[in-house]
Amino acid sequence: MVKRIAILGSTGSIGTQTLEVVESHPEQFQVVALTAGNSISLLKKQIDKYHPKIVSVKTKELAETLQRDLVGKVKVVYGEEGLVEAAVYSDANFVVTAVVGSIGLKPTIQAIEAGKQIGLANKETLVTAGHIVMDLARKRNLPILPIDSEHSAIFQSLNGEKLEQVRRIILTASGGSFRNKTREQLKDVTVEDALKHPNWSMGAKITIDSATMMNKGLEVIEAHWLFDMPFEKIDVMIHPESIIHSMVEYKDSAVIAQLGTPDMKVPIQYALSYPNRVELNSEPVDLTKIGSLHFSNPDFDRFPSLKIAYQCGKKGGTMPTILNAANEVVVAAFLQGRVPFIEIESLIQHVLDHHDAIQQPSLEEILEADVWARREMMNQLKSKGW
Amino acid sequence: MVKRIAILGSTGSIGTQTLEVVESHPEQFQVVALTAGNSISLLKKQIDKYHPKIVSVKTKELAETLQRDLVGKVKVVYGEEGLVEAAVYSDANFVVTAVVGSIGLKPTIQAIEAGKQIGLANKETLVTAGHIVMDLARKRNLPILPIDSEHSAIFQSLNGEKLEQVRRIILTASGGSFRNKTREQLKDVTVEDALKHPNWSMGAKITIDSATMMNKGLEVIEAHWLFDMPFEKIDVMIHPESIIHSMVEYKDSAVIAQLGTPDMKVPIQYALSYPNRVELNSEPVDLTKIGSLHFSNPDFDRFPSLKIAYQCGKKGGTMPTILNAANEVVVAAFLQGRVPFIEIESLIQHVLDHHDAIQQPSLEEILEADVWARREMMNQLKSKGW
Repeated sequence: MVKRIAILGSTGSIGTQTLEVVESHPEQFQVVALTAGNSISLLKKQIDKYHPKIVSVKTKELAETLQRDLVGKVKVVYGEEGLVEAAVYSDANFVVTAVVGSIGLKPTIQAIEAGKQIGLANKETLVTAGHIVMDLARKRNLPILPIDSEHSAIFQSLNGEKLEQVRRIILTASGGSFRNKTREQLKDVTVEDALKHPNWSMGAKITIDSATMMNKGLEVIEAHWLFDMPFEKIDVMIHPESIIHSMVEYKDSAVIAQLGTPDMKVPIQYALSYPNRVELNSEPVDLTKIGSLHFSNPDFDRFPSLKIAYQCGKKGGTMPTILNAANEVVVAAFLQGRVPFIEIESLIQHVLDHHDAIQQPSLEEILEADVWARREMMNQLKSKGW
Repeated sequence: MVKRIAILGSTGSIGTQTLEVVESHPEQFQVVALTAGNSISLLKKQIDKYHPKIVSVKTKELAETLQRDLVGKVKVVYGEEGLVEAAVYSDANFVVTAVVGSIGLKPTIQAIEAGKQIGLANKETLVTAGHIVMDLARKRNLPILPIDSEHSAIFQSLNGEKLEQVRRIILTASGGSFRNKTREQLKDVTVEDALKHPNWSMGAKITIDSATMMNKGLEVIEAHWLFDMPFEKIDVMIHPESIIHSMVEYKDSAVIAQLGTPDMKVPIQYALSYPNRVELNSEPVDLTKIGSLHFSNPDFDRFPSLKIAYQCGKKGGTMPTILNAANEVVVAAFLQGRVPFIEIESLIQHVLDHHDAIQQPSLEEILEADVWARREMMNQLKSKGW
């Protein structure tokens, strides 16, 4: 079956790499829909190259400009409604959700309702609405194919196996830019320092989340939903080389792991080609060149974000939404140089402490909680003069 | 389905561990046949505990003694015919071939012909008669379930995947007792030194084969048959900790690996429980305690056995039979202190050099080649005064 693909967020890091994968296997993958925010010139190039039938952009104005330039070559829509229209576009049978933030929620849910397979690179979908999304996917019998290295590794390690025979899931973590620094040493770190990730080249926000390990905490919550796994059965292990992308330990003590060089094209292509594998021009891992792999337990005092994320995950309901939204705002402020790195976790904890969780929240309640947490964090920053 | 199991070689290391696995899951595994060589007192205990319906021993005399002691509690047979009778015993649906040596060939082949699933711990079956055994298993649509840590790891890493999507198989090797010694340093090693395997507690013969890496060479040939893989796609990697038991690299550069503490009960139980996994009381691997895993390429000059085994595998026909038989005889002589460790490979090479390979040999031709190689090696040792 040819996968006819809608890429939500085609101009970002995952989006552009998804297009590279599509390009290398034209007999298997076709682009039918693309969406972007403001990166209109890149989107134009993508339209010329991949000939989607529909594109969506952020605003009416951008849509009109684009429409004028393209004179009817492609249908142009815009805004949140446009994003949904691209996601449910009838010609597509596979939707890659690569937009960042809670804006990915509605189109993903509607795409599942429209019977599309989902390649999921949008963290918020599972962190905030895991109960809604996974319920829906189960009802429609549609797989949610994870597009990030850890969950893809777990998904691959579960291939051919039975979930009820899993003893635990082990998410590996590089430990981020500051893995060798104590809390004391974190007092002086700069934005520039924080942006130097040892293994992966990623966006700024996720690189900071790696340094706090909030990224791993959010991944724990995602894994909980994606693999229907209680938090007690999800462990995190520090593995600085990022070669073992994650592991599954089974009842018989056998551990299955997926390894490779850090290259996002591997999980992207696996989601697209699943249940098959196709040739990928990616540097194969050579363990003999790397020589050795290292492992240690994370220190929950050193990395309080990880502890906070487990707590939010276990409390459930709207708590992970609050966690995610508060984190997004404070990380943006850190990136602007307004907040010291060492304060990130306590600022988040403060917002969490002021929230009464709603259990089994509806999509509306999730979006409201998201807005509330952002405002709460901004007020807090303002009150501190940040 | 309850597995009703015949264990060929129940008093050996694999045999006794298989019985431990059977005992821990009586609802899933039952013993119906046991065979032993000379270890009659242990076999008697096993009969009392597991109540097989048939047992086979080495000689008529042993059978008569046993028969007298047991007075009709169990059918007692003997010799090669007895071994085959136990293997094809109608009540059994699963045969564990845990006998050592070419004596395992006939019963395994006849068990497949009788429609039994095979748990294979007998190296000679695939090394010498891979083409016969795998052809037969394919025709009968019966899985050959490997019972050793490396092939089980590969088998597990292939679970849910397609063989044609494999780029290469990577067999890991500890490097054995002498992995840090040069050829020069090997001149002075003793039998006692050679028997100190760093990770696995195994029989004497296989421990010596680990020290020469002939064991890995024979495993390469087994993997070739078991996974229908050309030798060019089978690599060996030194991994001193024996934690990653082996790996499969796929077309998309993803590598799937199976890890665990070195415990033969894991592959034994996996063969029995396949395609399921059941609880096993085995020490789970804790990578954070181990701290680091190391990898390097094997040196084919330092370990000529490995090079010789690849050459024999590629030449095919009766060559691997000669390799295996010549190795068995010279290793036995080494264990008796008659042959220096450093001479093992050249003695084997000498026998190989005097053999004209027969392609696609019949079972009779294989057994004849086996006898020829043993005699040739013994004559060679005699001529050197060893």
